[in-house]
Amino acid sequence: MRTVSWDYDKQTLIMIDQRILPGRFELIHYSDYRDVAQAITDMVVRGAPAIGAAAAFGLALAANQSRAETAKTLRADLKSAAEELAAARPTAVNLNWALRRILKVVGETEGSPDELRAVVLAEAQRIADEDVEINQRMARHGAELINSGDVIIHHCNTGALATVDWGTALGVIRMAHEQGKHIHVLVDETRPRLQGARLTAWELSQYGIPYDIISDNAAGYFLRTGQVQKVLFGADRVAANGDVANKIGTYMLALAAFDNGVPAYSVVPTSTVDLDTPTGEQIPIEERPADEVLDLQRQGELLSPAGATARNPAFDITPHRLLTGIITENGVVYPPFIENLRKAVLAEQTA
Amino acid sequence: MRTVSWDYDKQTLIMIDQRILPGRFELIHYSDYRDVAQAITDMVVRGAPAIGAAAAFGLALAANQSRAETAKTLRADLKSAAEELAAARPTAVNLNWALRRILKVVGETEGSPDELRAVVLAEAQRIADEDVEINQRMARHGAELINSGDVIIHHCNTGALATVDWGTALGVIRMAHEQGKHIHVLVDETRPRLQGARLTAWELSQYGIPYDIISDNAAGYFLRTGQVQKVLFGADRVAANGDVANKIGTYMLALAAFDNGVPAYSVVPTSTVDLDTPTGEQIPIEERPADEVLDLQRQGELLSPAGATARNPAFDITPHRLLTGIITENGVVYPPFIENLRKAVLAEQTA
Repeated sequence: MRTVSWDYDKQTLIMIDQRILPGRFELIHYSDYRDVAQAITDMVVRGAPAIGAAAAFGLALAANQSRAETAKTLRADLKSAAEELAAARPTAVNLNWALRRILKVVGETEGSPDELRAVVLAEAQRIADEDVEINQRMARHGAELINSGDVIIHHCNTGALATVDWGTALGVIRMAHEQGKHIHVLVDETRPRLQGARLTAWELSQYGIPYDIISDNAAGYFLRTGQVQKVLFGADRVAANGDVANKIGTYMLALAAFDNGVPAYSVVPTSTVDLDTPTGEQIPIEERPADEVLDLQRQGELLSPAGATARNPAFDITPHRLLTGIITENGVVYPPFIENLRKAVLAEQTA
Repeated sequence: MRTVSWDYDKQTLIMIDQRILPGRFELIHYSDYRDVAQAITDMVVRGAPAIGAAAAFGLALAANQSRAETAKTLRADLKSAAEELAAARPTAVNLNWALRRILKVVGETEGSPDELRAVVLAEAQRIADEDVEINQRMARHGAELINSGDVIIHHCNTGALATVDWGTALGVIRMAHEQGKHIHVLVDETRPRLQGARLTAWELSQYGIPYDIISDNAAGYFLRTGQVQKVLFGADRVAANGDVANKIGTYMLALAAFDNGVPAYSVVPTSTVDLDTPTGEQIPIEERPADEVLDLQRQGELLSPAGATARNPAFDITPHRLLTGIITENGVVYPPFIENLRKAVLAEQTA
C-alpha cells in the first residue's frame, strides 16, 4: 500500500490519513484538488517526497475538474491550481519541484485538452514511481555507511509514510536491516506532532527493527555517553550550500552529534536540493498553529494551563558545517557541499 | 502557600501535588517518612531545593515515628530513614545535603529523644526558611543581568514549585519583572514530564509575565534567528568544575545558546554545588519509567503504537564550557569555575 496513489477506476487520489496513525489506519479518496491542498496543510500527508507526489496527483485532479475546452485555457487552470497547491506548505521544495515538472511537460506538449489531461496524470504517476526507485537507490548508498551493531538516532518520520514508498533516512535503516545488519534505532519522538513516536515507531515495528522511543531532549544524553554511532534525518529543502531545512529540532540534534564527533547525515532525493536557494537563510520557515503544541493530554487531561499561548515553528535550518554528508540517489555528497551538491543534482538531470 | 510546609497542629508534612497541576490544585498530608520517599520518587514534589526541604521534613516525621527511648537508638533510626529518603532520587544533591545537615546537628546535640526530635524539626524548618531567603538573594544577583526587553528561554520548572517558595532561574525572571523590566519568556515545554508547559506556564500566568510555550525542539530555531537574549535554567547538581546536571534537554539547549553566542546561566543555591563531585562524569543519571515518554494522548488517544518501548534518562550533563555563569546566592560565578565556585560555596559556609 503506497502512501499516495491513484485510483484508475474512480479517477481519485487515495492517501493514508497520517494524522490518526498508529491508532487507526484509514484511507481517504480525493476528487477535488482544493481538498488535496487542504490535506497537505493539515498533514493528512506529510514528508517532502510524499507531498510532492500528492501535489502532482492534485494537478491531475485539477485537470479533470477543469471545464477548459482549449489547451490554452487548461494550461491556465493548471497554473492557477498549482499556485494553490504550492501555497499549502511553504518550506518543502518538492511540492514546487513536482508542480513545476508537470507544468513544464504540459507546456511542451501539443494536443487536445483531454490529451493534456492524460499527460498530467502520466507525469504524476511517473513522479510517484520514480520516488520509490530513487529511495531504494539512496538507501543502498546510505546502507554502505551503516555497520552491524550501530545505534542510530533518527528524527521525525522519513519512512514509507513520508514518501510514496520505502523512505529516505528510514529507508537507509530499512535497507541495512534487510542486508542483515543488526541495528537499534533511538526514535526521537519529534515534538510537536510526534511523527517519530507515532509513525516511525509504527513503521519500525512493521519491519521488525528494534527501537526505543526517546524524548527529543534525550538525544544529547545518548550522544554524550557514547551510545550512538550515527544520526540520520531527511530534509524538506537543501540549499545550494548544503544548509538543511528539516523538521524542527534537527538543528539541535545535529549540534549534539557534532559536539560528540558522531556522524550526522541528511538523506534526500536530489529533488529536495534547491540550487536556486543559495543558503538556509533564504528558506521560508512555516509557523503552524499553537494548538499543535498545546493539545497534549495525559489520562485525558490537557497539560498546559487554560489560556496558554505557544509559538510553533515547524522547521529549522541546520548549517552545513554540522553535516558529515548528504546521502542522495546519486551517491553520498561530502564537503565542500557547494560544489559537490551541484554535481550530484546535475548528474541526475543528465542521467 | 509554600510548596513544602509543616503543619504544627497535625505534625504532618503538607505538599502541593505537582503531578496534577495546573488542572487541579491539591494538598497532600504526610505522616510517614516512607510515603515522603515515595512522593519524591513519584514527583509529587520535584525541583532540587524542594526535595531537599521535603526530605528534611521527612526526617522530622521519621523522628516522630521512631519508638526509640534513647538518643543513640533514635540517631540510628534517623540514619536508616535518611538512607531510604536519599535513595528516592539519585541525581539531585540537595536531598543528601539536607539529610546530612540534619544528621550532623542531631549528632552534635546531647539530650533526650524528645529533645532530639525537636532539634530535627527545628533544623528542617530552618532549611525551608533559608531556602526562600537564599532564592531571593539569588534572584537579585541574577536580575542585574536581565535587561528590559529581553526574551528569555527557560527550561523545566525552577519556580516557587521547584523550591520551598520563590524559585531559582524562574525567581530571577520574577525579580526582574517585579523591578519593572519588560520580559518575554519562551517556555521550553520540557518533555517528557512537561514541567515547563504545566508548571512554569502556570506560574508565569500567576505572576502576569508574558510567555509562549515552545516545544523543546524549537529553542534552537529561536536562538539561531536572533530572537533570544538569555537562556536560564536551574540545576540538580553542580560538580566542582562547573559541569551541571539538570533536567534532560539542558545540554542541547546550552549547546544551541553557545553556538549562537547567547549567554546561558544556571541558577542554583550553593547547596546544589557538590565540591565532592569533581566533574559531571561522576554524577549518577536517573533513568525513569518508560511510561513517562509513552503515556501522551491527543483527543483521548494514545500516540505511540501498542507495544512501543522507550528509554527515559531524566537528566543530562551540561559541560561547564557551555555556561556563561552560575548564579548563586553569593553572587554570579564566572569561569574559571573550578576556582570561583569553591570560593562562592565557602563564602556561604563562613558567612
